Parts: sequence; structure tokens; C-alpha cells
Amino acid sequence: MPKINENFLKLEKNYLFINIAKKVNAYKEANPDADIIRMGIGDVTLPIPSVVIEAMKKGADEMGVKETFKGYEDSGAGYDFLKEAIAGYYKSFGVDVLPEEIRVSDGAKSDCGNIVDIFGDDNVVLVTDPAYPVYVDSNLMSGRKVIYADSNKENGFAAMPDENVKADIIYLCSPNNPTGSVYTAEQLKQWIDYAKKNDAIIIYDSAYEAFITEDNIPRSIFAVEGARECAIEICSLSKTAGFTGMRCGYTVIPNELKFKASDGTDVYISQIWGRRQGSKFNGVSYPVQCAAAAVFTEKGLEQIKENIAYYQENAKIIANALDEMGIFYTGGKNSPYIWFKCPDNMGSWEFFDKLLSEANVVGTPGAGFGRNGEGYFRLTAFGDRDRTIEAMQRFKKMMNT
Amino acid sequence: MPKINENFLKLEKNYLFINIAKKVNAYKEANPDADIIRMGIGDVTLPIPSVVIEAMKKGADEMGVKETFKGYEDSGAGYDFLKEAIAGYYKSFGVDVLPEEIRVSDGAKSDCGNIVDIFGDDNVVLVTDPAYPVYVDSNLMSGRKVIYADSNKENGFAAMPDENVKADIIYLCSPNNPTGSVYTAEQLKQWIDYAKKNDAIIIYDSAYEAFITEDNIPRSIFAVEGARECAIEICSLSKTAGFTGMRCGYTVIPNELKFKASDGTDVYISQIWGRRQGSKFNGVSYPVQCAAAAVFTEKGLEQIKENIAYYQENAKIIANALDEMGIFYTGGKNSPYIWFKCPDNMGSWEFFDKLLSEANVVGTPGAGFGRNGEGYFRLTAFGDRDRTIEAMQRFKKMMNT
Repeated sequence: MPKINENFLKLEKNYLFINIAKKVNAYKEANPDADIIRMGIGDVTLPIPSVVIEAMKKGADEMGVKETFKGYEDSGAGYDFLKEAIAGYYKSFGVDVLPEEIRVSDGAKSDCGNIVDIFGDDNVVLVTDPAYPVYVDSNLMSGRKVIYADSNKENGFAAMPDENVKADIIYLCSPNNPTGSVYTAEQLKQWIDYAKKNDAIIIYDSAYEAFITEDNIPRSIFAVEGARECAIEICSLSKTAGFTGMRCGYTVIPNELKFKASDGTDVYISQIWGRRQGSKFNGVSYPVQCAAAAVFTEKGLEQIKENIAYYQENAKIIANALDEMGIFYTGGKNSPYIWFKCPDNMGSWEFFDKLLSEANVVGTPGAGFGRNGEGYFRLTAFGDRDRTIEAMQRFKKMMNT
Repeated sequence: MPKINENFLKLEKNYLFINIAKKVNAYKEANPDADIIRMGIGDVTLPIPSVVIEAMKKGADEMGVKETFKGYEDSGAGYDFLKEAIAGYYKSFGVDVLPEEIRVSDGAKSDCGNIVDIFGDDNVVLVTDPAYPVYVDSNLMSGRKVIYADSNKENGFAAMPDENVKADIIYLCSPNNPTGSVYTAEQLKQWIDYAKKNDAIIIYDSAYEAFITEDNIPRSIFAVEGARECAIEICSLSKTAGFTGMRCGYTVIPNELKFKASDGTDVYISQIWGRRQGSKFNGVSYPVQCAAAAVFTEKGLEQIKENIAYYQENAKIIANALDEMGIFYTGGKNSPYIWFKCPDNMGSWEFFDKLLSEANVVGTPGAGFGRNGEGYFRLTAFGDRDRTIEAMQRFKKMMNT
């Protein structure tokens, strides 16, 4: 056999959520009658709004008729009708991006993972810790050096830049997965200034922007001055519109962003990303794009807002229970995630096992998101209302509250 | 900005088909009344069979109801119902693969491009030339050394191994894109023996298997003895079932295939590919998977066979016209592609311009597929019947035949 990419051997054997699924499945096999409530993986549970389903079915019907059949997309980066709908969505919260700056993909995870292809392997990557595992794993796979900015109780689990640290590629996520914390415009401005001083790029994951309720929290990094000179934004319909099983995301690359190659030539980042995608991706399913565009219609936005409000109410229920138990947490407001300190100074995986076996509730061990996650735990508000209430009752009972 | 992956600067600026689209669009702008017939990109034109559309719409409906809503897939490698359907399809032409060995993806191009992530950058890659550009481009992006096996008029544009050449990763495609040539079982056995002697892996692209009509041409490399010890197969529903705009493919990795890491440990290739996909991919849209599974039902197979027969008849029309003009070609039988020598010893791009401007027919210049493609040209049989006839009449008129 050829030589393996040995960088893979430096990774955890499995992606975090595959490990959790295996643990839960093993528990279920041993306890077939257990009534398990899943609040681990950040997966939505409400069905997709009817206006979106109807748009998908209309798109499917078009594929069945010769005159309206769609084959390959010319660009593979999304149909204009969808890119225009997304640009209109940005405009609704006051941000101007051009449709041509939007690249449609099968999801934020794919873009987050694949974007690393366009960067040299000798760049230094800065990741706030704890973080969504994809930022670290995808860079370790390429053999890049990853350094960390600590998010912890002291900074409200929202790390800020350290002027003494040099980095080339910076991953930020706000509202944060897993900590639920958010950056204000002022805080993002500090990161932007830091990136520009370092000649670095910010890869900004805004997958949870739809959960922002407070006015001073930007829905996009491009709402902040200077971001167009140093940032790429990756977003998704997964959490905005329940698309985890539908698969559609998008990446915004400002037209002016460019690399300086070693021979001194300027190379536009959008062009290099297009080149990467041109060889390794072939666009998103047409009926999925029809569905995605329907999300951004007046009726679509109305329907998804109801779903988000439902999840936000769940978040409040979780937060209230933690308040009752006197447990420290971040998130829950502006975010579907609640990040809390494990009771009795338990380790993350220790608490995972306890919560699973004693309360039959699945969460995500904070340690799976990085060293600052040890001793912390993540619950999601994406569950069913009754099950969320039931889970928190079981949690409180377990804690004798 | 961070450092660019300088390997991108070694590539052609654009993916081949994006260049062609740009040229055609420019011609169309200058000649708005031109009635252009597109036989360039290998894109299908017949609509998707009704049984497949209905399955997709049923899947979409399930996404709109809480009880049947699907979020993330646990594995991200395809639902069991689809993997079992694909395994059954393999069985129908006498090949045994396990459902768990099948990894569902958004298309063969994605898998072809992304599979390189799991290999060390110091492997030597052998590509038959001419070839589908993705094999070369995706490896150049990683900085790998690519060497070529010449496909030419002498070997019927079906390169065979050279015992004096050492390689670690071998790309084969049969029926071949772009040359339409096919490997017999005996020829594939020679490649397998060569791979095993070199301790190499074969990445076998079988995207066009559904066009095979002759009995002695394998539909899968796994029909040939020894392939399970040295081959990965990548296939797609794009050409089998008109899925170019629906996006679904699959990769078969035999369970027994493993790397030997530098520390001597055995690492299963399926596990490493799963790790790659776990971090950089999130599965195929559920309604698309429903549609894909319907392709492999009795009714689905019946309907796609009709479509393939239609394209095969187009291929005959093209081949007959070339015969009339006395032009050398390969393909057209067992393949939707016809690969021919440009008349009057013209260069590929020269002939592209002539055919576009004088006959308003778009094809693909052979030179875009590699050095052995210079002076050759590819036409596809995926067009409309009447338009195919019309295109060949224009071609003959242009040649004064």
C-alpha cells in the first residue's frame, strides 16, 4: 500500500460525535429499555417548514421534466437565485455582501474542513479553546501547527487576542460552539485589529447567527469595520432552518482578499477557493438549493423564526434548571448551547457517564472540545420541549435538587 | 494574509470545464443569435425517471413531519437502505461488496478529489494520459509527483502498465473519460498484478459502468481476481441515472485494505477515510439518498436503462458520422464518449474554435485532458437526439462531407 498521511495518526481515532454515538449505542444495547434523551450532538429536531418542503418538491418535479431538468451547475458555487436570496438575508441585518462573494456548499463543516487546502502548510493556526473539533482536526491532518487562545471562566469562555502571540490563520465562532458565548462588535474589532497587525486571516464561523437576540451582537463579522480586509465567513442553514439532514451552507469571501505568493504576485483568495472547489466539488443538489432559497422568503423566515423561538425557550428551561442547582454556565442566550461546569468537580467524561447511566440523558463532554473544556459539559436546546423539561427534571433529581 | 498553498500556482488557472464555459459564453455574447449545440461537458440531458422523483418528494415530505424528520446521519456515510441498494446493484452484475464497505457521498468528483487527503505527500501517482483532470489536479494541489502512462492510437487509448515504472497510487478509469476506451478483465488483471508488485493502490473510477454492453468488460474492478487486495472503486449516479444536478456518488473500500504506518502499525484505509470524512463532510441530503435508492429498484433500473439506451443510440449516430468522414476514433461503444482525431491535423483548441464558430457545436479539446490528448477531441452522447443528429450534420457540412 502507498504511504499513509501520517498526520492522521496524531488525531483522536474517531471524530468526537462518532465516539459519543458509539458509547450511547453500547449503553442502549446493554439497557434496551432505557428511555434516552439526546442533548448531545447539536442536531435539530423540529421538522422543516412547509414552504421549504414545497420548494424542494417543486425543484424535484423540475428535475423530472426535460424542459426544466438541471444538470451540472456552470460554477458549482450555487445558483444565482440562491446567492441573491442569501445576499438579501445579509442585507436584512444591515450587512452588504455581493451575491458573487457567496459560495454555496453542502454545509459549513465541509467548507470549514476543506478551506485549509488553499493555505500553505507552514502557516500557524490559532484556535480558541474549547472549539468545534473540525478547526483543529482539519489543520492537524495537513500537518499545520495549531496554537490555542484560552476561553475560560475568567473571560466568560470568549477568548480575546494576546498581542504577544503570532498567528496566520485565526478561527473564531460566535455564537460559540460549544460555549454559547458571543462576541460584541467591540470584541470582534479587537480580533480584526489583531488579524490585520499579524497579516492574518480570520475564518469566522457564524453557523449560529440566527440565535442572536441582542442588538449589540453582530450577526456577521462583516458588520464590523475592517472585516472585509481580513475575514472569510462560513455559515450554514443547518441551525438557521433545520437543514442538518438537508445539507446546505455558504462561505463568503470578500472580492478584495488576496494572497501574496512567494514570487510577489497577488492571487485572489476567491479564485483559489474556486479552483479548489472546481476540482473537488460539484455543487449542491438543485432541489436542495430551491429549498434553501425558500428559507429566505418572507414566509420562510417567518416559519424558521418560530422554530428558533421554540429552541430559545428550551435554552431558557435548561438555564433555569442550572440556576436552580447553582451551577455556573455560559450560553443559552443568543445561542442554542448551554455550557456548564460539571457538578462536584467531576471530569467531563465522568459526568457524561453519570448523566447517561443515572438520568439517561446524553450530553457532550467539554473535554472533547479542547483542554479548557475539561470539567465542563455542553447541552443543546435543540430537543423536544417535553423531553427538555423531562431531562432537566432527571438532572435535578440526580443532583437531589 | 497567510501563505498560500503554492501548489495551486502550478495548476492551470481554471478547471478545464470552467474555461470552456467562459469561452462559450464569450462566443454567445458576441453572437447572440447563434444556435449552439453543447456536446462538451459530460452532462446528461434526459430528465430523471419518475420513480426517482417520487422517492425524493416522499423523502422531502418526511423532512416536513416531526416524527419522520431526519437530522444528521450518525455515520455520514449513507443510510443503510441506500448502501444495501447499492450492494444489491453490484450483486446484479455478479460482484459481492458489503454494504458497510460502501461510502455514500455527494459525487464521484468529490471523492476522487478528497481521497488524496489520506495519502502521504511523498507517494508517486501514476495517471493514464489523457485523463479526467481531477486525478492530476487534486494531487498537484498536495504537491505530489505525478507521472503518466501514455494512452495513444497505438494502444487504442487504453494505457497498460510498464514494469520499469514505479508508482504508489494508480488512477484507472474504464469506460474511460475522455477516450471511451474500456479495459477487458484480462487487462485489468495486468494492472492489478502490477499494483500488487509495486505495493500500490488502484483508484478505480467506474462512473461510466452503466454504459458497458459487452460481456467481457467488467462493470467493477472487484469483478477481477485480486482487486480487493489493492483497489478502491469510486462510482456515481451522475451518468447511471442522470444525477449530475442531484449529487450522489459512492466509494467502495474493501474491509481488508490497510496502510502500514512508519511505526509498523496496521491502519485500515476505511477507518482513515472515515476519519477524513468525519471531520470534513456531513453526509448526503436525505431526500437525495431516497432518490438514489429508488434508482436501484426494479422500476428504477428499468427507467434508467431506457435513458442509457437513448444515449447509446446518440453515440452510434456520432460514430457513424465519423466513419462517414473517415475520422479515427475510440469509444462510442460501452461509453457515452467519442474521442476522435481532429481533422487536417488540427490542434485540439484550434479545432474547438473552428467547430464552435463554423458549426456552433461545443466539444471538449483533447489537450485539456493531457499531452496525449493534443490533436484529439471529445464529443458526448448525452445530448438530445435531434440536436445530436443536427450537430453531426453541421460537422459533416463543415468538413464538406
